[in-house]
Order: sequence, then C-alpha cells, then structure tokens
Amino acid sequence: MADQNEQLVTDILSKVLQSNDINEVTNGVNQMKDVAINLTEFVGTAPIGDTIGMVIANVDRDLFAKLHVEGDYRAIGILSARTGGGPQIMAADEAVKGTNTTVISVQLPRDTKGGAGHGSLILIGGQDVSDVRRAIEIALENVPTRFGDVYNNQAGHLELQYTARASQACHMAFGAPEGQAYGLIAGAPAGIGVVMADTALKAANVEAIDFASPGFGTSYSNEGILHITGDSGAVRQAVISAREVGEQLLGTLGDTPMNDFPSYI
Amino acid sequence: MADQNEQLVTDILSKVLQSNDINEVTNGVNQMKDVAINLTEFVGTAPIGDTIGMVIANVDRDLFAKLHVEGDYRAIGILSARTGGGPQIMAADEAVKGTNTTVISVQLPRDTKGGAGHGSLILIGGQDVSDVRRAIEIALENVPTRFGDVYNNQAGHLELQYTARASQACHMAFGAPEGQAYGLIAGAPAGIGVVMADTALKAANVEAIDFASPGFGTSYSNEGILHITGDSGAVRQAVISAREVGEQLLGTLGDTPMNDFPSYI
Amino acid sequence: MADQNEQLVTDILSKVLQSNDINEVTNGVNQMKDVAINLTEFVGTAPIGDTIGMVIANVDRDLFAKLHVEGDYRAIGILSARTGGGPQIMAADEAVKGTNTTVISVQLPRDTKGGAGHGSLILIGGQDVSDVRRAIEIALENVPTRFGDVYNNQAGHLELQYTARASQACHMAFGAPEGQAYGLIAGAPAGIGVVMADTALKAANVEAIDFASPGFGTSYSNEGILHITGDSGAVRQAVISAREVGEQLLGTLGDTPMNDFPSYI
Repeated sequence: MADQNEQLVTDILSKVLQSNDINEVTNGVNQMKDVAINLTEFVGTAPIGDTIGMVIANVDRDLFAKLHVEGDYRAIGILSARTGGGPQIMAADEAVKGTNTTVISVQLPRDTKGGAGHGSLILIGGQDVSDVRRAIEIALENVPTRFGDVYNNQAGHLELQYTARASQACHMAFGAPEGQAYGLIAGAPAGIGVVMADTALKAANVEAIDFASPGFGTSYSNEGILHITGDSGAVRQAVISAREVGEQLLGTLGDTPMNDFPSYI
Repeated sequence: MADQNEQLVTDILSKVLQSNDINEVTNGVNQMKDVAINLTEFVGTAPIGDTIGMVIANVDRDLFAKLHVEGDYRAIGILSARTGGGPQIMAADEAVKGTNTTVISVQLPRDTKGGAGHGSLILIGGQDVSDVRRAIEIALENVPTRFGDVYNNQAGHLELQYTARASQACHMAFGAPEGQAYGLIAGAPAGIGVVMADTALKAANVEAIDFASPGFGTSYSNEGILHITGDSGAVRQAVISAREVGEQLLGTLGDTPMNDFPSYI
Repeated sequence: MADQNEQLVTDILSKVLQSNDINEVTNGVNQMKDVAINLTEFVGTAPIGDTIGMVIANVDRDLFAKLHVEGDYRAIGILSARTGGGPQIMAADEAVKGTNTTVISVQLPRDTKGGAGHGSLILIGGQDVSDVRRAIEIALENVPTRFGDVYNNQAGHLELQYTARASQACHMAFGAPEGQAYGLIAGAPAGIGVVMADTALKAANVEAIDFASPGFGTSYSNEGILHITGDSGAVRQAVISAREVGEQLLGTLGDTPMNDFPSYI
C-alpha cells in the first residue's frame, strides 16, 4: 500500500505539474479548439501562447485615430498573445510576405503568464478585409513552427529565430534589413542572453543590429536579446552556436530546457 | 482500485487547481479575515485582489516630498492591491465623492500575480485623518462591487466599469470629465480589447476619451482598454455590447470567463 | 479507506503547493546543484532566486558597444536572477569591495516569476578575468545571506537590507553615499512600503535618499522602496522598526511572512 501510494503521489504530482494552468514550461499552451462562435471578427487561435487572431472589416475611425499607427487602413487584422513576441512577429513576417498587407503596430506587453518574457499585440493593415483575414490565417498557421526553437525549464527560457529573408514585420519590430537573413538569439534570465550573444558574434561573421536587455529595448522583460543580420549561412551558424551554450547555461538552473514543437533551425 | 485511484487523481487535481496560490482565475482572492492588529495605520482589507487600506495621520515631511504628488496634506490614505486597477480606482471615486478628500496619486504596477493586468497604488490626501480614514473605508467597501464585471479564465480577463457620474478619481486616472457618465472597456490579451473597443464605439453614440494598449498608456500590461464618455444610457449600452463580444472571444482561448462577484452593470 | 485517502489528498496538496514551480512563497528557490558543464563562462549558481553567475574573458567588441555601459573593459562578469534585485545588488557590493572590479550596469526586469518585485541583471567590469571571476564568486556566496530579510507570503513580500558601509554597487543602483551606512526598506503590495517608509523615517534620525514606487523609480513593480543613509546605528534601527510594521501589515493579507534564510539584520 505504501508503494502504491508513493507511485500515486508521483503520478499526481507529474499530472499537476503538466497542467496548463500552473506549469511555466508549457504556459500559454492551449489545445486547438473547435470553436464555433458567431462573430465575424474571430479568425482563429494558435495552439500555443494563448494566441488569438481577429479581423475588423471597417474599423471605427475614432478608435483607429487612437491606435498610434501610421497610414490609413479600413481593415485591420489583430494577432494577440499572452506568451511570445518573437514567434508571433516571425509568423506575421510570413503573413505580410504572402498578402497585400502591412504590419502597422508591434507592441510587447511584459507577459508570459509569470514567465520571463513578452506577450504580443500585432496589428496588420490592409484595404481589403479578405487580404487581412488571409494574413491573420497565415500568421496563426506559422505560430507553432516559430515556437520550435523556444526552450523552457522552471528557471527561464531560450528563444532562437532565423529567416533567410526578413520582411517588413522583422524590419519594423527588430530593425532587420528587408530581404536579408536575420537571426534572433534570446536567453532568460537575461544574463544567459549576454553570454549567448557573445558566443553568436564570435561563432560566425555576422553583424549585430542591436542588443536588448531588461533596461534597454524590452518592456522590462528578463531577457538578453541579440538581433543579427548577414550572410544566411553565417546567421544560421551563429544562432545554432548560441543555442548550444544557452541550453547548457539554463540547464544549470533547472531541468534540460525543452521545446513544445519541433526545432526548425 | 484502479477506478478508485483515477477518481482520486481527478479529485486532487481539481482541488489543486482551485487552490488560491495557483489558480489564475481566482488570483488575488483572499477570504475576509478578522484581523486584529495593533497598528493605527491599518484600516482594513477587501476580500479580493489582495487589497489593503491604510492611513497615515501625519505623514513624514521628507517622505511626502518624495511621493510625487501635488498639494499639501498632513493625512494620507493608501489603497494598495496586487490585482486590479480599474476596480480600486472606481472604488476610490466613490470614496472621494462622499468625503472631504482628494486622490493625489494613481500608480499602476504591472501585476495581477502572473495575470495580464495591473495592480494599483492609490494615495488620498486630506487635512483631517478621520476624513481620510473614512474615504479608505468607503473604497474598501466598494472594491468587491467593482470586481463584479471582471471576468477571468485561464487565458486572460475582461473588465467593464460604468458610472453615471464620474468624480475626481476617474478624472485623474482616466481623463473622464467630472460629473458625466464614464465607461471602461478592457480585454486581455490586448487584441480582444481592440475588438471590444470597436464594438462599443459602433454600438452607441459615445465619445472615445482614450485607448490604452501594451505600448501606450499601460504599464506594459497585456490589455486593450477603451475609456468612453457621453450620455449615461449610451455609455451603459456601449459597455454591455462590448462585454458580450469580449466573453465570446476570450472563451475561444479557454473556459467561459467567470466573475467572482455579481455583475453590477 | 476514506480517511487514508483524505490524508493522501492532504499530503499531495501540501507537496504540490511546496513545489518550486507553483509556490510563490518559495519562487525562485533552487537547490544548489552539482553542475558539471564544460563552459568556461559558467561560474556557478546561488541556491535562491534562480541566480546564475557567469564571466566572459574577452567580450566581443560589437556586443560591448551595445551593452549601454561606460568605461572600457575586456572582461565582464554577469550576475543574473529571476527573483531579487536588492539581494543581488548588496551581494555585488560586497564583491566589488574585495576585488579590483566595478559594477558597470544594474538593470531591474519586472520579474519574480509572478511575484510583485524585480529580478536583476548586474554587469561587472575588470581588466583581468580572474578578478571578475572572483567578484562573481563572492557575489554568489553572498546572495543567500542577503535574502535573509526577504519575507514572503501569498500576498506579497517585504525586503530589508542594511550595510554599515555602502560601496560602489549601492551607490550606482540606489544613490547611496559610498563609505556610509545604507538601508533599504521595501514592501509589496506597494502601499505597505509607504507605511514602512513613514515608520522608518520617524523611528530614527536618518536621511531619505529616495522613495521608489510603481510609477517612479521601479520597473512597474508593485513595491514601495525607501533608501536611507545616516549614522549606522540609526539606519539599522530604522530598518528594524519598518520590518515590524511591514510584517504586521502584510500578515493581514495572508500567512505570517517568512524568510527562506536566517535574518542578518
């Protein structure tokens, strides 16, 4: 009986710690739901990060004037998440590549549901609501892939992103030159990101666009974030080298960091 | 035995998820305690949001000079909370209506104990300590009511506030014209607040005072927040319309959003 | 069987609530691990706050230029944590006293893993990597002591710090005059810190350097933080008086606040 109970305790603890509400490692992860709501504004959700996509066909003019965006658009798309800035921005980058739309605002709340990073609010503008809706659909489809190199444990997270050809969302959010390779290298707690950044810049001949940290260029998140550009092979190599170092460092504070979706880099 | 254990696991998981410490839905909720402490500064607590009320009869002059407030007051009242900005500000609005006191500072930490919103620090000034104490008592009494239209689920929250006659606290915190109807419409994650705001402005003939979002007018919270004024019936109608849309959208990311106290709007 | 299960449920709930991932009271606490990683940059961890220490012998020049620090250093040390600003800054203050190094950046993310306060990123510069490594080792050794007067419960925390002789880290981070006694008095939710500050300034003849709150001088943390200097006995007395009041006030919102390491003040 004692053994049985001990096993039971272990099983339950494991189940509890895997639970959505309380496990930082999987925070923000929702199962894809078959949602049937009768709202034309609703586009869909992504299965991670509490990410929701919406569209307004003809946005109220008074509201639009208060959204702090440039340009003039009738239709706006909205990608909003509790957990994740980088993944949603990279997903929006794919979305604007394939549609006649423009990212008009990238805002990064200090969120992640108790984690160390950001959530995101991304607004996409277009003249035609069908373009904007398609952009939001593409973004939602790309979110899981872009979580593939986000690694978590109890103490923090690592995030790596890479694209051979940055588009307008990466340019607006990160200063990435459009049409060139771009890489993002982040570690939390922030000091891990400093060492990852140093590793990346020494590993390959890449250019540092910027380095963000709790006091500079973040919304007080506990991250060190390097943005790089350069030759696509070099950018990719720099990202991979930083990932190896980050995994070891973050692992000293907890379990081996794990990703929720397959690595894509 | 297997069935029995399965039931046990389910029971325990349910109990754990309901626990105060780990359930975002009820975060900040404390049972009202019969507190008997021997401190003249202590006024009381509210049963939600980890809200505490205090008063200093004759505040130290060096401290007062560093509190970043205007005016000159001997007595200050303090309303402080981990969870909730809007509810405490609305409660303070009632408090200053009924007493010879003035709200002299409204500060919004990025808090809610892992949630998407704000906590609050509200300072109230008066010449007479009994006035200030009464103001804090009134505010504490009003906090639960003002949580009546705060709805939570695993993914975020909605907040709706309404008053037929805004007073000095709403003016200071939200720019609401004193003596007129005022409404607050918030959704988290922030994108839900954008759609709620659009719905509100189209539902009734109201005026948008401001729209706050993670990068503008919040403390990096993950909220979209519309402030409106106008005819009292129109403001109320706009708030109710936005609530319906918000409930549907937030519901796509988790359970049906629930309030901890009865709706008052 | 019923009794047995009830006991089991209680045991499990207790175990779950004590778990690192979900208990705010002990958030950030990791057992000291025997970490054997093959990275020259890794120095060690402290057993609280998810605190990690690292060193870069010859920092990449492009990265150094983007770190927002003054001076020119080849070697940098990094002290980074999810939970705790004050303890790590006080520990770094000891570190620079005993080594030929300088604190070159103190950044305070809004963190504490869902708690009300800050994490920290502290950079230390030196010309010689062995000096910098020794500084990080000293800092890591001092972190647990400096958590000795951090008291937590479900609703928030108190932090008290005291030194008879402030050094360069306290000067840079808090404006403390070097060589003089310094005290830090913090309460969360922030209003508790206001009353603690008033108590401290009335309890002894000390000078208020500054008072930080959610809107002024913090990274939107939910803390009220008083920095004081003066005669060492007076500073210590002021800190102790504030602690007593803070414990009573925070206790009205939850359990008796507890420290994870022995009090040192």
